[in-house]
Amino acid sequence: MPIIECVPNISEGRRPDVVSGIVAAIAAVPGIIVLDSSSDSSHNRSVVTLAGDAAALQAGVMALVEATIAAVDLRGHRGEHPRLGAVDVIPFIPIEGVSMADCVKLARDVGAAIATQFSLPVFLYEEAATTSARRNLEDIRRGEFEGLAAKLALPEWTPDFGPAAPHATAGAVVVGARAPLIAYNINLATDRLDVAKKIAAAVRHSSGGFRYVKAMGIPLADRGIVQVSMNLTNAEKTPMFRVFELVKREAARYGVAVLESEIVGLVPSAALVASAEWYLQLEGFAPDQVLEQRLRAKRG
Amino acid sequence: MPIIECVPNISEGRRPDVVSGIVAAIAAVPGIIVLDSSSDSSHNRSVVTLAGDAAALQAGVMALVEATIAAVDLRGHRGEHPRLGAVDVIPFIPIEGVSMADCVKLARDVGAAIATQFSLPVFLYEEAATTSARRNLEDIRRGEFEGLAAKLALPEWTPDFGPAAPHATAGAVVVGARAPLIAYNINLATDRLDVAKKIAAAVRHSSGGFRYVKAMGIPLADRGIVQVSMNLTNAEKTPMFRVFELVKREAARYGVAVLESEIVGLVPSAALVASAEWYLQLEGFAPDQVLEQRLRAKRG
Repeated sequence: MPIIECVPNISEGRRPDVVSGIVAAIAAVPGIIVLDSSSDSSHNRSVVTLAGDAAALQAGVMALVEATIAAVDLRGHRGEHPRLGAVDVIPFIPIEGVSMADCVKLARDVGAAIATQFSLPVFLYEEAATTSARRNLEDIRRGEFEGLAAKLALPEWTPDFGPAAPHATAGAVVVGARAPLIAYNINLATDRLDVAKKIAAAVRHSSGGFRYVKAMGIPLADRGIVQVSMNLTNAEKTPMFRVFELVKREAARYGVAVLESEIVGLVPSAALVASAEWYLQLEGFAPDQVLEQRLRAKRG
Repeated sequence: MPIIECVPNISEGRRPDVVSGIVAAIAAVPGIIVLDSSSDSSHNRSVVTLAGDAAALQAGVMALVEATIAAVDLRGHRGEHPRLGAVDVIPFIPIEGVSMADCVKLARDVGAAIATQFSLPVFLYEEAATTSARRNLEDIRRGEFEGLAAKLALPEWTPDFGPAAPHATAGAVVVGARAPLIAYNINLATDRLDVAKKIAAAVRHSSGGFRYVKAMGIPLADRGIVQVSMNLTNAEKTPMFRVFELVKREAARYGVAVLESEIVGLVPSAALVASAEWYLQLEGFAPDQVLEQRLRAKRG
């Protein structure tokens, strides 16, 4: 059975009863597995992690949109995280037995269905984007809900599906397909924030580092140390072990040691297996030598 | 669903039609998944890898024994590998959602059933052993099929189940429970066999090394290099990364580099994840952060 992950972000993180009602509406859809749900009060935002096949996820996302736009009115919404819609962003991620092309098709099908059923403007992003100007979520989201009417009036921001005007209370939805994202942090045995910031600059794409790394240096004040906080946006092409080794080397240049690293949330098995392969110098290793993977393949 | 692995070794590796007939008899049992089957002609021996729950594996093993003793007559059997029976050894291995105690119980249930149904002497070994003298397979197997009648006549070698005399054509069966075994080899960038042998001696339990490592140094003549060939008999307690790092350090002492390592056959996901955790210095990592594991747990 093919496995697709879907990680919708909704603009509600302060009313647990509302969030649990929305999650319950998704979980009631046959074939949907809710892997995780977490809310951030200062962001006023929740992230739900779902898995299933294409048909189940499409039905699950429709249930999510219906429940969310019934409960969330962006006109009174405040929070630290930028947002364009009540249902802000819906990425589909290939995990096993599906291609990125399958997820792009699913994103476009779901985007069209959302626009039709709920009269919402829909933008397609990342791998599902229809133009390069719409690949980056940040570019689509710039101006936020409050600037959406003006943005949609510009010819270059005609939505991919649905009306060229915001939904009065729910704004717009961004739907797309992308590689799995790993939230990966490396803690340094120092309180020198400048060192964390310099290392973040060395490793991240925007300032000349690895293509699929976003990074910033932040203090962990309660522990008296600093952290290189990262998102690895394609761990197949920019793998964890390479990022870890570069951060360790850069830290050594300042006489600083790596204390530990941490993964926040979920990580695909393949990212860890790739790290084991590299460090153990495993040659000729095939993924189906992993017992659990062989088992899944044989079960079909 | 709990997953138990079972890796029966049978004394037939030269007649592919006989082996495939035996494998087909196992595969016909509902709930059994045949993960792998490989035959070695010089050993005249085949290894079948099965997975399932306890009930399915018990039925599958009974089918295996019936088909094997019907086809294999040890009186004419020659091969390099020591063996006591037509069905030589049947280990049960806990993989997921089962304990070692569950596998010990299964081994004893299956051992009793084999003795009753096929009038075969059965020894229990490793975790399922009834005395410490029977923990090691090598001790039970010493004397082989040809010495079995004399061995069974000794009071200390009364079988755990079944008659105290060999089955005329099928000898005896050894049934047990053990941790997953990883066949792990490290290739050195040298043709110096003495170096491989010295490293093997340093790393293996029998000569003072790690408790759960068996190792020998062998030449890979066709490649002009040498190999430290190992079995890791409990990779939870003696993990791959620690073995790799020790071999690398010992090799450096002789001015030799590690060329690569290799895993032969299957490896439990946990062994690779543990290596990634160690090298990446991951703190606070929980197995259910692995997406596929979370998915299996949520599916129930």
